[in-house]
Amino acid sequence: MSHVSNKTAEPLVEVWRGPLAESLHSGHAVVCDGTGQIVDSWGNPKEIVLPRSSSKMVQALPLITSGAAAARGLDERRLALACASHQGAPEHVSAVSAWLGELGLQETDLRCGPQPSRDKDLKLQMIRDDQAPCQLHNNCSGKHAGFLTLAQHLGAGPEYVDPDHPVQLACKDAFEEITQETSPGFGIDGCSAPNFATSMHGMARAMAYFATAHERSDTQSNAAATLAAAMYAFPQMVAGSGRACTLLMRAASEPVALKTGAEGYFVAILPKRGLGVALKISDGATRAAECAIAAILVRLGVLDAAHPDVKRFMTPEVKNWRGIVTGRIQPSSALLA
Amino acid sequence: MSHVSNKTAEPLVEVWRGPLAESLHSGHAVVCDGTGQIVDSWGNPKEIVLPRSSSKMVQALPLITSGAAAARGLDERRLALACASHQGAPEHVSAVSAWLGELGLQETDLRCGPQPSRDKDLKLQMIRDDQAPCQLHNNCSGKHAGFLTLAQHLGAGPEYVDPDHPVQLACKDAFEEITQETSPGFGIDGCSAPNFATSMHGMARAMAYFATAHERSDTQSNAAATLAAAMYAFPQMVAGSGRACTLLMRAASEPVALKTGAEGYFVAILPKRGLGVALKISDGATRAAECAIAAILVRLGVLDAAHPDVKRFMTPEVKNWRGIVTGRIQPSSALLA
Repeated sequence: MSHVSNKTAEPLVEVWRGPLAESLHSGHAVVCDGTGQIVDSWGNPKEIVLPRSSSKMVQALPLITSGAAAARGLDERRLALACASHQGAPEHVSAVSAWLGELGLQETDLRCGPQPSRDKDLKLQMIRDDQAPCQLHNNCSGKHAGFLTLAQHLGAGPEYVDPDHPVQLACKDAFEEITQETSPGFGIDGCSAPNFATSMHGMARAMAYFATAHERSDTQSNAAATLAAAMYAFPQMVAGSGRACTLLMRAASEPVALKTGAEGYFVAILPKRGLGVALKISDGATRAAECAIAAILVRLGVLDAAHPDVKRFMTPEVKNWRGIVTGRIQPSSALLA
Repeated sequence: MSHVSNKTAEPLVEVWRGPLAESLHSGHAVVCDGTGQIVDSWGNPKEIVLPRSSSKMVQALPLITSGAAAARGLDERRLALACASHQGAPEHVSAVSAWLGELGLQETDLRCGPQPSRDKDLKLQMIRDDQAPCQLHNNCSGKHAGFLTLAQHLGAGPEYVDPDHPVQLACKDAFEEITQETSPGFGIDGCSAPNFATSMHGMARAMAYFATAHERSDTQSNAAATLAAAMYAFPQMVAGSGRACTLLMRAASEPVALKTGAEGYFVAILPKRGLGVALKISDGATRAAECAIAAILVRLGVLDAAHPDVKRFMTPEVKNWRGIVTGRIQPSSALLA
């Protein structure tokens, strides 16, 4: 099985402390157009990687193409939530809870596992109240509500994260169709669903498919355009307050869909330009993925490097326990050139 | 100023998910003997790096050579604490508090800044009690108690973290003496003290100086031998329950002093073999530094790869939110060969 190789990864993000660069993050990135052509790339476009939660909008395609979303009358807010790595804030938890209720289901029907809320206030309140997190707080609970909606529509069984369950087979088909690659394998994700591998080029191609979907009229393209539009419309549902996906989508000068993934993955859909972006930091660092995706979007002209929420991720200050600025994170020259 | 360069870093740690390697950590490591000769190395021994908290035992040398430790009757427990990145558990907090009390000082005399305790029970209890962390909880508060002891002994002023304060000048002298290099610069550490850069070879040389100090009788060597012995004797003070430094020191088949540092640094002192080890994961990942230092110590015959506490750091399982094993972390072939 292919291997993440640092030999071909390119330095993308630097961590400085005073006058010294103390850490360095390398990775791979591809910007691709709707014809599958690579417009720009760093590292190795052929690198095989698990896109993790960056594939959530691909996993949400069968929810629409099956007719399940229409049959359940899912609005854009819920479709954005189906593509989300939300932070388990009250707004996300209540939205997923209401969605499950309308399906006649409950928290125990989820298979994503309990995860502590990443919403600071809620997390502290739950500790004070000695309240354990449940599966609704899991960042993937919206995706799983989507899986359950599809499973119910298909009349399929409750173990919807099994790799051979109709829901996951549909996800695999959609993934391979729009990456235009046969996936060489899958890993089990943090939320227990299978996560399919593809090349960096394959994932950028899939994102360009989303970015150009509004120009086509087939069922899959319509679904992709609908999901991308839901993400532009509800960035708060896709991640949450203070999070990179949400703030950078809001900071963009045109509609952009952004989605983070675990282990340093990040993707972008740019419908005005018909471009897709896939990024993997080889070592899996989120701080570097956030910096690099912001830098790529600045380079593409979609983000302004001087915007406070862009600086927050692209060139953040490193502070110590006394609040003294001790260093900074910044894109490498390869991303700025 | 020199730069952490991935061109010369070597793949040291792999993160697998199912059949796929999804992330990779590269770095530099040097094993050095008491004559300064490199016994083994990975990556670039000349790489200039900030050793961060891995330099704490070097920063504690002037506390002893000045006569301050003897004048204050510091026992081994406090000397271990002076070298510690402790987790702010009640045992560490009370020990530092008592130490400051004997100096006639208090928490507000510290300059390390407040840091939330890393002791899970205490952290939760403080949230429930709505109690803010103070500087005693800072992982460096023992080092700072040492700095204050030295400052008081020298009759120097209260701003002991200023780079030109006599305490920090003494630390720099000790650092340059035992690394046998002129430091090319410093950064301000998480705890506000200056942290001096040196090459990987220089830091391994310094650790070999500690490892062979008991064979010599000069003042600085006596101090180094005393600090290393304090660390072997009180691994619980050096880090705390569940932490890599503490558990791996306890798991070792012979006395070993281990010390982690921020941004993927780790060092080891092996007195029976007269060897010093310095390790830097280029991207700064702690999970990789813990895996790689364990692998190097297994390779040197000091740790048993089958010991549960060694497996915990060298070959840990990756589990998801449902507790399913989804992957593993493991040393690269370069560390196993």
